[in-house]
Amino acid sequence: MKLATLKAGGRDGTLVVVSRDLARCRAVPAIARTLQAALDNWGEVEPQLRQVYEALNSGALESETFDAAECHSPLPRAYQWADGSAYINHVELVRKARNAEVPASFYTDPLMYQGGSDSFVGPRDTVVADPAWGIDFEAEVAVVTGDVPMGATPEQAAAAIRLVMLVNDVSLRNLIPGELAKGFGFFQSKPASAFSPVAVTPDELGDAWRGAKVHLPLLVELNGKPFGKPNAGVDMTFDFGQLVAHVARTRELEAGSIIGSGTVSNKQGGLWGSSIDNGGVGYCCLAEVRMYETIEQGKPVTPFMQPGDRVRIEMKDAAGNSIFGVIDNTVALPKGA
Amino acid sequence: MKLATLKAGGRDGTLVVVSRDLARCRAVPAIARTLQAALDNWGEVEPQLRQVYEALNSGALESETFDAAECHSPLPRAYQWADGSAYINHVELVRKARNAEVPASFYTDPLMYQGGSDSFVGPRDTVVADPAWGIDFEAEVAVVTGDVPMGATPEQAAAAIRLVMLVNDVSLRNLIPGELAKGFGFFQSKPASAFSPVAVTPDELGDAWRGAKVHLPLLVELNGKPFGKPNAGVDMTFDFGQLVAHVARTRELEAGSIIGSGTVSNKQGGLWGSSIDNGGVGYCCLAEVRMYETIEQGKPVTPFMQPGDRVRIEMKDAAGNSIFGVIDNTVALPKGA
Repeated sequence: MKLATLKAGGRDGTLVVVSRDLARCRAVPAIARTLQAALDNWGEVEPQLRQVYEALNSGALESETFDAAECHSPLPRAYQWADGSAYINHVELVRKARNAEVPASFYTDPLMYQGGSDSFVGPRDTVVADPAWGIDFEAEVAVVTGDVPMGATPEQAAAAIRLVMLVNDVSLRNLIPGELAKGFGFFQSKPASAFSPVAVTPDELGDAWRGAKVHLPLLVELNGKPFGKPNAGVDMTFDFGQLVAHVARTRELEAGSIIGSGTVSNKQGGLWGSSIDNGGVGYCCLAEVRMYETIEQGKPVTPFMQPGDRVRIEMKDAAGNSIFGVIDNTVALPKGA
Repeated sequence: MKLATLKAGGRDGTLVVVSRDLARCRAVPAIARTLQAALDNWGEVEPQLRQVYEALNSGALESETFDAAECHSPLPRAYQWADGSAYINHVELVRKARNAEVPASFYTDPLMYQGGSDSFVGPRDTVVADPAWGIDFEAEVAVVTGDVPMGATPEQAAAAIRLVMLVNDVSLRNLIPGELAKGFGFFQSKPASAFSPVAVTPDELGDAWRGAKVHLPLLVELNGKPFGKPNAGVDMTFDFGQLVAHVARTRELEAGSIIGSGTVSNKQGGLWGSSIDNGGVGYCCLAEVRMYETIEQGKPVTPFMQPGDRVRIEMKDAAGNSIFGVIDNTVALPKGA
C-alpha cells in the first residue's frame, strides 16, 4: 500500500491513498484525515486503507491525478525523527580522511542522533540555508513505526515497522565540527529534512524487503547528473529492527516515530570513475566524495551545495518503476541573506 | 491563564482551562479539544480560552474539581523538545569535578540537545528505568512556543513564547559518558521527561517573568526532604529568547515546540549545609550534589535514584501559592527487570 500527504488541509495536510503506479490518488476522510491519525489507530484503519488501495489499483474507484508537487512529506511534522548511522563504511571514511580509527563498539552499538521533527521540508520544496554553513544532502531510507514498548527486541521492533520512505537529511557540514566539539551532538547542523512524496508498507517492496533492510539501489542525481547508486541492502551494519530497538532501550516509541538509516554508503575502491574505483557506485552525500578526494588527493575538491543546486533522490523496483516518487530539493538563500 | 491536559480522551488527552488557584477546571471542546490544537491556532483560540479562564476564576462558570493526578503532561506528546544548558554554573561544576576548563564559547553560545518528544511521562507517573543506568532527575523551567521563523532574533523569539511550565528531565547518568564519547550526543541517556500538570501564559507570572526568565525559586524535594530551592532567574546565562533563537538559527520552529532551560543551578560556596556553604540553595539534580562531594571529598556519596525513590518539583508565587501544580515522579523497575 502507498500513502501520501497533500499540502492542502492544514498543518498535517490531507492523507491520500496512492495507486501503485503513482498515477492516481484518493483522499479518505471517512477513514483517516491525516497519516498520523491513521498511524494512531493502525489496527483498525489499515484494512480499510488497503481496500481503497486495491480498488484504486484496479480502477474500480473514482480518483484524482496524483501530483507529487502537491505533496508535503508524508508526515509534515512528526513526534519523533531519530537518525542512525548504520552504514559504517561512511564512518570509516570520515575517520580515514582524518587519520583516526573507528572504535570497535561502532560495529556493535548503533550511532544515532535525535533530529528535529516539528517542521519538515516538502519533497519538492527548497532547502533554505546559508552556503557558508556548508550545505550537504544525505540520501537515506527511513521507516515509520507503530507503538514500540520499551526494551523491545530487534525482532519485535522490526514487526512494528509500518511504512518505509526515503529521506534527504539536510546537513550543514561547516557547523558540525563546532557542535560536536561542544559534546552535545548535532543541533543547528541538522536543519529540517525532506521525505519522499510517498511512504509504502514493507510488503509493497516484495523480496527487496528482507532482514529489515531495503535491498535496492538508492539513486541520487546532483544537478541532473548521476551522483550515486549504492544498494541500501549492502553494507548496512545495523538493520531497521536493530535501529528501532536501540531507540526503545530506555523508552517507549509512540506511533508515527520516524527512524532513519543514515547516509547509504557501499564499500568501493576509491573515487567513482578514478583508476582505483573497483566498480564503484558513487555517493549519497557530498561529504563522502570529499573524503575520497581528501584520501586520494590530499584535499576536498567538490564544493558543498550553492543556491540553485538541486538534488534528486529516488528508488526504483526491479521493473524500473519509481516506488516512493522523487525527492527533488533545490537550495535557496534565507530571506534577507 | 492556566491550561492542563487530562489523560482521558486519547493520545493527546483533553485540554482543560484551570482556575488560578488550581481548584477547578473546565474542558473546552467547542474551542479546542487539545493543547496542540489550541497552539496551532493560538491567535483565534487564546482570547476564547481567556474568557473561560476569567469566568472560571470568578466562579461564574460551571466547572469540575481539578485533580492533578488525572493529568498528563500539558502536551502528552510534542513535535519538539529541545533542552538547553543555560545555567553555566552546572557546567562549571561538571568540569571542575573532572579538573577540566569550561570553553570560553560556552558563555556566548548556548549548549542545547534535541530530546525525544513522542511520548512524555505524566506529572504523577512513575519513571520506569533500570537503576544500573544511574537514574537522576533534572528540575527545570521550559517554555512552549508558537511558530518562530528561521533566523528570529532573541527578542522575536521571546515574543513567540506562549506558555511556561516545569520539567523533570530524567537523565541516565551512567549511560552518558559512553554516549558522549561516541560524539553524537545524548540518546538513550535522555529517556522520556515529565512536565508540570499546568502550563501558564507568561503574564500569569506577573513581575516574576522579566527578561524572558522566571525569577522565582524552583523547589525540589527528594523523598519528602528539601533538596533544592535555587532561583530560576539567577545565574541563567541565556534567557529563553536566546535559547529559542538558537534553535531557530537554521530552521523554523513550529507551534508547540518545547524549549527547556537545563538544570537550574545557582552559584554557592559548597555542599549545602557544609562549612563552606555560603547561604547555599541546594540542587536541582543528584549529579550536582555528587559533583560538590567529588570536589570537597574526593568522591560522590549520594546515590542515584532507586526504585521507590520520589522527586517532587514545584514553584510558588510570592504569596506561597503553587503556580504549575506539582511534578511528583517515583522510580519503578522496567517490566521483567
